[in-house]
Amino acid sequence: MANYTNMELLKFLLFEVHPMNSLFNYERFAHLNEEQAWMMIESAKLLADQEMAPFFREMDETPVKYDGKGNVQTHPALKKIISAAAEQGWIGGSALFEHGGMQLPEMIFGTAHHLFQAANNSIQGYLGLSTGAAGLITSFGSIDQLEKFVPKIYSGEWQGTMALTEPQAGSSLTDITTSARLINNNEYSIRGQKIFISGGQHEACSNFIHLTLARIEGAPAGIKGISLFIIPKFRPAADGSLEYNDVYCAGDFQKMGQRGYATTHLSFGDNNNCIGYLVGEPNKGLSYMFQMMNGARISVGLCAASVAMAAFQCSLQYCKERPQGRLPSEKDPTKPPVNIIQHADIQRMLLTQKAIAEGSIALGIECNKLYDLSHACNKEERANYLLLLEILTPIIKAYPSEQGSRSAALAIQTLGGYGFTTDFPVQQHYRDLKIMSLYEGTTGIQAIDLLGRKVLMENGKALQLLADEINKTISAANSYNELKSEAEILNNELSRIAWILKHYTPYALEGNMEKYLADATVFLEMMSYTVIGWQWLKMALKASEKLKMTGMAPNQKSFYEGKIHTCQFFFKYEMPHASACATTLLTDSTLTSVSNFELFD
Amino acid sequence: MANYTNMELLKFLLFEVHPMNSLFNYERFAHLNEEQAWMMIESAKLLADQEMAPFFREMDETPVKYDGKGNVQTHPALKKIISAAAEQGWIGGSALFEHGGMQLPEMIFGTAHHLFQAANNSIQGYLGLSTGAAGLITSFGSIDQLEKFVPKIYSGEWQGTMALTEPQAGSSLTDITTSARLINNNEYSIRGQKIFISGGQHEACSNFIHLTLARIEGAPAGIKGISLFIIPKFRPAADGSLEYNDVYCAGDFQKMGQRGYATTHLSFGDNNNCIGYLVGEPNKGLSYMFQMMNGARISVGLCAASVAMAAFQCSLQYCKERPQGRLPSEKDPTKPPVNIIQHADIQRMLLTQKAIAEGSIALGIECNKLYDLSHACNKEERANYLLLLEILTPIIKAYPSEQGSRSAALAIQTLGGYGFTTDFPVQQHYRDLKIMSLYEGTTGIQAIDLLGRKVLMENGKALQLLADEINKTISAANSYNELKSEAEILNNELSRIAWILKHYTPYALEGNMEKYLADATVFLEMMSYTVIGWQWLKMALKASEKLKMTGMAPNQKSFYEGKIHTCQFFFKYEMPHASACATTLLTDSTLTSVSNFELFD
Repeated sequence: MANYTNMELLKFLLFEVHPMNSLFNYERFAHLNEEQAWMMIESAKLLADQEMAPFFREMDETPVKYDGKGNVQTHPALKKIISAAAEQGWIGGSALFEHGGMQLPEMIFGTAHHLFQAANNSIQGYLGLSTGAAGLITSFGSIDQLEKFVPKIYSGEWQGTMALTEPQAGSSLTDITTSARLINNNEYSIRGQKIFISGGQHEACSNFIHLTLARIEGAPAGIKGISLFIIPKFRPAADGSLEYNDVYCAGDFQKMGQRGYATTHLSFGDNNNCIGYLVGEPNKGLSYMFQMMNGARISVGLCAASVAMAAFQCSLQYCKERPQGRLPSEKDPTKPPVNIIQHADIQRMLLTQKAIAEGSIALGIECNKLYDLSHACNKEERANYLLLLEILTPIIKAYPSEQGSRSAALAIQTLGGYGFTTDFPVQQHYRDLKIMSLYEGTTGIQAIDLLGRKVLMENGKALQLLADEINKTISAANSYNELKSEAEILNNELSRIAWILKHYTPYALEGNMEKYLADATVFLEMMSYTVIGWQWLKMALKASEKLKMTGMAPNQKSFYEGKIHTCQFFFKYEMPHASACATTLLTDSTLTSVSNFELFD
Repeated sequence: MANYTNMELLKFLLFEVHPMNSLFNYERFAHLNEEQAWMMIESAKLLADQEMAPFFREMDETPVKYDGKGNVQTHPALKKIISAAAEQGWIGGSALFEHGGMQLPEMIFGTAHHLFQAANNSIQGYLGLSTGAAGLITSFGSIDQLEKFVPKIYSGEWQGTMALTEPQAGSSLTDITTSARLINNNEYSIRGQKIFISGGQHEACSNFIHLTLARIEGAPAGIKGISLFIIPKFRPAADGSLEYNDVYCAGDFQKMGQRGYATTHLSFGDNNNCIGYLVGEPNKGLSYMFQMMNGARISVGLCAASVAMAAFQCSLQYCKERPQGRLPSEKDPTKPPVNIIQHADIQRMLLTQKAIAEGSIALGIECNKLYDLSHACNKEERANYLLLLEILTPIIKAYPSEQGSRSAALAIQTLGGYGFTTDFPVQQHYRDLKIMSLYEGTTGIQAIDLLGRKVLMENGKALQLLADEINKTISAANSYNELKSEAEILNNELSRIAWILKHYTPYALEGNMEKYLADATVFLEMMSYTVIGWQWLKMALKASEKLKMTGMAPNQKSFYEGKIHTCQFFFKYEMPHASACATTLLTDSTLTSVSNFELFD
């Protein structure tokens, strides 16, 4: 079987760069240690190898299919796979013991999901959505709701989903119109349409628990009037049996990628017999949903990174094995061709992929660690961890999902014409990956979140905390000659962000948000280079530390040297584009707020 | 039907920016005038509207299929379409009258093909390959060969192809092994395998004329021993009948895009009964083939631009019609949503697409004009036109095929989740487009061609000629206040190219080609920004001239203002990345010529 990730990298990130053992000091994770953690990850790898990777191509070639009568046909193996994953704890494992979980940190849970994403990203979504939906019920629902719905989700029998998007509203949740009329207690009669519901009603699960945003009749307009409901496909009746809850699957979108993953259109209450159970208080639905959404954003970012990683692994293997051409100085055509990994342009394409994929995975694990710390620590520490996580969330969502596509394109490119054929998986990685920049808030929305909310909040405290962390890495890197130049560049980039914000913040202060946010995406791109550069410097720093040790095996030495090498590559080839973004941001002309739309024709 | 290009743009480029009328002074094109030219382009548009665009999605959804017995099934409409296109002259129309053509300039012929590419890029390939193959026979074959093969290709009954790639050789033509053994006169017995043969043996044509590279027994090793052969599927017998020539189609590659376009595996001489007819002299095959290849490179670049244009048109229409969200300053959720074209980030994405697609089409038409001039002019003028064309060829090939993918990705992004579904064509544009960076020499090969050959040839004369042309545009733009800043930037970029070459050329002079070429792709990217920026300044300059006229209709005024606006956008948002490329090129560390491949693991 082809490699789809690098276990040495994961070990390096989990135990050396972002050492997990600091988690075990907290009560929440005190039942674990490094050996157990790695064993769990290895068992997830086995599951991915045996049950997920083998169906990657097949699920693309025989995609999910709607039968015209409310049913979505998924791959025949899916039921068994979900059940096997559930059994190992990969749906409910991160929940607390008291909620039926294994109290696993995201550092373990998310890394297992990285393996699933890299092996077969169509499957991982089914699991991840269930985790998120159950987590939402657990956090904000009643004990009764938890007991009724969560165990069956964790066992993989039922599928959890998140139902936000409506045809007329798209990203603008303000405008959702799915309605909820009070029947009694916390039961509401629901009517409305939801589209793009991933993991919607399919044949691999027996029931579906849709965590749905709707508007209670008479609620305030806009996002202040949105409530969260549990809407099962089959609702539990008083006698414990299940009855159909008038949630009809009206279609499944055919897509260019993730073709094994159901993307459904759901119709609630066509026969006025759809009951939704209010979660928490009325009109607080969006803030509840954001718990799930923030987790989902990190997960989508990591998924993009994972798919890019899988493409990179395929590309790397091909380049090592494929003989073609000779080096420029070799003029003798009777000499045998070299393997293409010897060509400089191939090395450039491999290192670009490595820089993007591994840099993104490193950031994803950093985010997961912050998530774990914020959940495990005491109240005083919590605020800072959360602020750091909040400012990094739009970056871990957007960078891998944008640059990952470029990375997968390079994987295709290294395979030449073969990369475009279905004989190799890289074209599927390229197709699958494209959705990541749309899921859970498009890149433009992440950019507005970063510049419009995260940078401004608490007078810039999140950014300050991040700068402090980055400065720590810079200081430490300065003790290594081989990293001095990168440390200096990163320091300059940090100052550049401050400089750009000095230029832009006055617009925000005077309330000119149109001007302040017009180039938010360019700002996001610029800042992403700095953050990924920071991750690379962190990795190179740890590698430099390790390389001082003696008696290392040659391949281990190469592993660490490869980290320093790729760090240098990132700073030489990728980082300069941050300065290009800054040039754009400092050019004052306003070209993207025109009202004469004929200019675009 | 959805728009897939902009006819006003084509008129602007053909008659104002790169005025075609200068061609009509030459004898070769003296039979034409502007009105006729435009009528022909309009008739091509009608053909594309009626016969090509309607099958764009269908040919993707029911792709070309191999029957396991040597036959490739294409879309049932293809035969009729090829025949209709042939009848209008869109296969043979650019040939001389004496060779059965209409002596059309590429400015007309290539623009018609742009329409076909934008409407349905799976169809255009069949036509374009026939044109190229027939052109090759006409240029280098005998009268007898011309008479035997060309008319049937021009009529669309027979399909021409180019057969270069072999499984073991890929891009490295040095290593092709298809063999040719002399039988008599110019007839050779052929044996070998060719893969990725576009338009290979399918059911829409009755015969196939494969322009094939092979090695005559005893020929020198390497590219000096490659000859060009005409190898028909059915060879003309002495009595005028056709007999099977032992060219077996062994398979059709399944691909992620261009699924309506056959990509075959051909096996020559399995039964020792395959005859190839030598074209021209032995061992000169590669230089002959380069005539076809250079044309094909321009055509592929224009095709990438055309597909990006089609995606942009879809994106633009959607953004104008789709209501969603409100501007940042609008806090009242009861106000109706705006059409998304009002959002700054959407405008950024539209202008990026417009800058890439239109800038590339402008360059494609510039190249076609240079091609026409070089064929129509006298000997003294010819050398300069050819040098200019040669230096621009890798750029028109590489820039649209790389940036076009980014452009189509933005088209998807503007449609949100819908863009990822097969309900809209943009995902198909995105998939189709990816092959363009691989056809006719990958981007890496274009880069080596640019820096390793074109920049160096005749002591840098081609580059000097290009700089002269760019300087003319800069000088003229300096008379317009609204373009002064862009003119200055372009001037700086030109100096930057000279500066980079000053840094790099010594490596070439001392024969260190590994070092000289290691970052050729980064150089290509950098120089592409300058060349496309030049095209934008040329367009803006013409628009500024026109806007001095009075009494213009408002929409025409907007059209010209849109050109200036997009030019400014290109210089603000895209051009700064040229400077990032320069930073990379001037960072001296050599990171992409390592011999320890474990560094990539």
